[in-house]
Amino acid sequence: MSAVVAEKTTLRAGAFGNATHLACRECGHQVDLGPFYACPECFGPLEVAYEFGEVTREQIEAGPANIWRYQALLPVPTDIQESPNTEPGFTRLLKADNLAAELGIANLWVKDDSTNPTNSFKDRVVACALSAARELGAKVFACPSTGNLANAVAAAGARAGIKTVVFIPSNLEQPKQVNSAVFTESLVAVNGNYDDVNKLASEIAGEEDGWAFVNVNVRPFYAEGSKTLGFEIAEQLGWRLPDQIVIPVASGSQLTKVHKAFQELIKLGLVEDKPYRVFGAQAAGCSPVSVAYKAGVDAIRPVKPDTIAKSLAIGNPADGIYVLDICRETGGAVEDVTDDEVRDGIVLLARTEGIFTETAGGTTVAVLKKLTESGQLDTSLETVVINTGHGLKTLDAVSGSVGPAATIEPSYAAFAATGIA
Amino acid sequence: MSAVVAEKTTLRAGAFGNATHLACRECGHQVDLGPFYACPECFGPLEVAYEFGEVTREQIEAGPANIWRYQALLPVPTDIQESPNTEPGFTRLLKADNLAAELGIANLWVKDDSTNPTNSFKDRVVACALSAARELGAKVFACPSTGNLANAVAAAGARAGIKTVVFIPSNLEQPKQVNSAVFTESLVAVNGNYDDVNKLASEIAGEEDGWAFVNVNVRPFYAEGSKTLGFEIAEQLGWRLPDQIVIPVASGSQLTKVHKAFQELIKLGLVEDKPYRVFGAQAAGCSPVSVAYKAGVDAIRPVKPDTIAKSLAIGNPADGIYVLDICRETGGAVEDVTDDEVRDGIVLLARTEGIFTETAGGTTVAVLKKLTESGQLDTSLETVVINTGHGLKTLDAVSGSVGPAATIEPSYAAFAATGIA
Repeated sequence: MSAVVAEKTTLRAGAFGNATHLACRECGHQVDLGPFYACPECFGPLEVAYEFGEVTREQIEAGPANIWRYQALLPVPTDIQESPNTEPGFTRLLKADNLAAELGIANLWVKDDSTNPTNSFKDRVVACALSAARELGAKVFACPSTGNLANAVAAAGARAGIKTVVFIPSNLEQPKQVNSAVFTESLVAVNGNYDDVNKLASEIAGEEDGWAFVNVNVRPFYAEGSKTLGFEIAEQLGWRLPDQIVIPVASGSQLTKVHKAFQELIKLGLVEDKPYRVFGAQAAGCSPVSVAYKAGVDAIRPVKPDTIAKSLAIGNPADGIYVLDICRETGGAVEDVTDDEVRDGIVLLARTEGIFTETAGGTTVAVLKKLTESGQLDTSLETVVINTGHGLKTLDAVSGSVGPAATIEPSYAAFAATGIA
Repeated sequence: MSAVVAEKTTLRAGAFGNATHLACRECGHQVDLGPFYACPECFGPLEVAYEFGEVTREQIEAGPANIWRYQALLPVPTDIQESPNTEPGFTRLLKADNLAAELGIANLWVKDDSTNPTNSFKDRVVACALSAARELGAKVFACPSTGNLANAVAAAGARAGIKTVVFIPSNLEQPKQVNSAVFTESLVAVNGNYDDVNKLASEIAGEEDGWAFVNVNVRPFYAEGSKTLGFEIAEQLGWRLPDQIVIPVASGSQLTKVHKAFQELIKLGLVEDKPYRVFGAQAAGCSPVSVAYKAGVDAIRPVKPDTIAKSLAIGNPADGIYVLDICRETGGAVEDVTDDEVRDGIVLLARTEGIFTETAGGTTVAVLKKLTESGQLDTSLETVVINTGHGLKTLDAVSGSVGPAATIEPSYAAFAATGIA
């Protein structure tokens, strides 16, 4: 990034809450809070660092039923609730006894992020990016995306009353275009694939002043939003960490941030320190992290994605190496499943727990099943699986495999003949 | 209904919480709690009656972030949380300053029920119907439906592990079929229109023992679920009633139940007694209640629906006469809007508040606008508008009217030429 979103001197006090600076994940070099995402020393990724002070369960529980109950643990100001935002989070953590019985797991929960404002976990990260954009004086709120992120940015930008520009590949399915275009008059279709769109976004970020690209120049703030998934799981379990957790891996950011959240809760004394195992889930058609895990190597070899799990289809995952570290250190694993297994995973979750997930969630459920069958996951331990998005966005994945059991004439006799009763 | 769901003697103590009996809305005749929906004396609709005892704000606030925080005010047992259900409700109440500014209203809120588990308010009523079905020993959980209700019943039944049969017209759009079929292996397509499907459902309810049709033989319990919309609005406003509320009208049940909820809160001393005005919203292509309201008559003349707002397309609304009573008594009104206004309403809400509503919500927002322009709604008073469902389910309504602002080659020069920056 060349152009800054705003001069540092314009920041108000407490603009980023308890955050104190940005720190390089690789070399530890510190940078002032601002629209920076790469370390000036080693080009490593910058992450938000904090001085939390005291944070209690009671303070959090007295907060609103959305992610702002964790304001003290996020890079957002104490008055964040007064700025228009989509108020995401505090989604359901459902005890999944039917799915558990089906898979032979003793104690299983589903964290269901499909009920967020625009039906994916992206509303969490975008809400944090929006706060950063606002505090940094951004004039335009933007992203390149093929789906969930576009929806979340367009909706949050509309509600915030900030000019919002969303870039998508021009061959994107019409329903996904509608689901962003309804929110913004500045949807831009780009002739090219997602990589082309992404490259254009970086180019614009370099040319235009005052643009906040959520997943580019305010990415450190954006990524922190995923911690709230970890905070909520722990709080909803009764301020306790699970023994095992299965998380989908696209860039890998979400998995690393859930782990970071658990570590912060331990350090703050909000949960008991205990071991937990982190598992990553990928689709076989885009499984660079799983491949590296299984090969026992540290380097990720980029791939060209070919899977129906498009929201996980990042061939060169930025946080892949950190996913490997976390899964290995905690005694977890990274696993991948075929597209057919992804489809089966969607239907399995729907039929057992009444949750209609998108392909990413189908991937995670299918990986849960595979890890159980291979014995990598301990079925006697308390396990959480994360559903990150909604099946209404990827209907095609299952529209060929589910449908009416019978088509009948409107009479009781015709119904009785089906044998369904 | 001929066949009962279960013998009355099998009911456990407290099966219906603080509910004491069913009472006829017309003649007051009392009936024991059970799978009954029509008064044996006058055929009027039966409604659940209670003896609440003391209920405090603190008790409610200590409850879960879903509708069961109001267990004491619903016909469900105290241990309702332990039975698998979709845990709907406690959805966002958003301060809608952008929409307010657009319409010239001083103080406006949107109650957004599109973030429920299956993305409509139907999850609330179905959760209450499921509890009744369970307590009455039903073997099958069922409904006739064309959309939102089918989704909610199929999902809730799957999660509860009860056999679920959902009846739909065979010409229903495939996406809506998928969104139910993913949850149940017993989706039955019926050659005929919705009236044919409905009639078949009543026939089956009469022939088969142990079937709970949510909107037929357990309807009194089902309908009570809509009260939670009213409870949540009052609690989220800080235990206060709004001055005005705009509610969509299909059968009219939701509007009457929100009013009932406000009255119960007043009687229990949970909110201050104050006047409030209730407004009903219909689409012009199915506006029997609005027509009666404007004509100043008490009788509803049934119509044949012809509108894109299909979830509001009930030509002979069962609670229409009660809607008229409530809107007239409270100083409100019933209004209707054209399909073009419905489409504009969807885009208006999306662009101002980042909420993608279905056609029913588009209707409600458009009616809010019309009432404001006509002066029927007092723009100086605090107003709440209810969004009942999600735009992803009725994409076709706006897919022709929103889309990319530009389609460009992947270069900064091409973007700069659009003038969007």
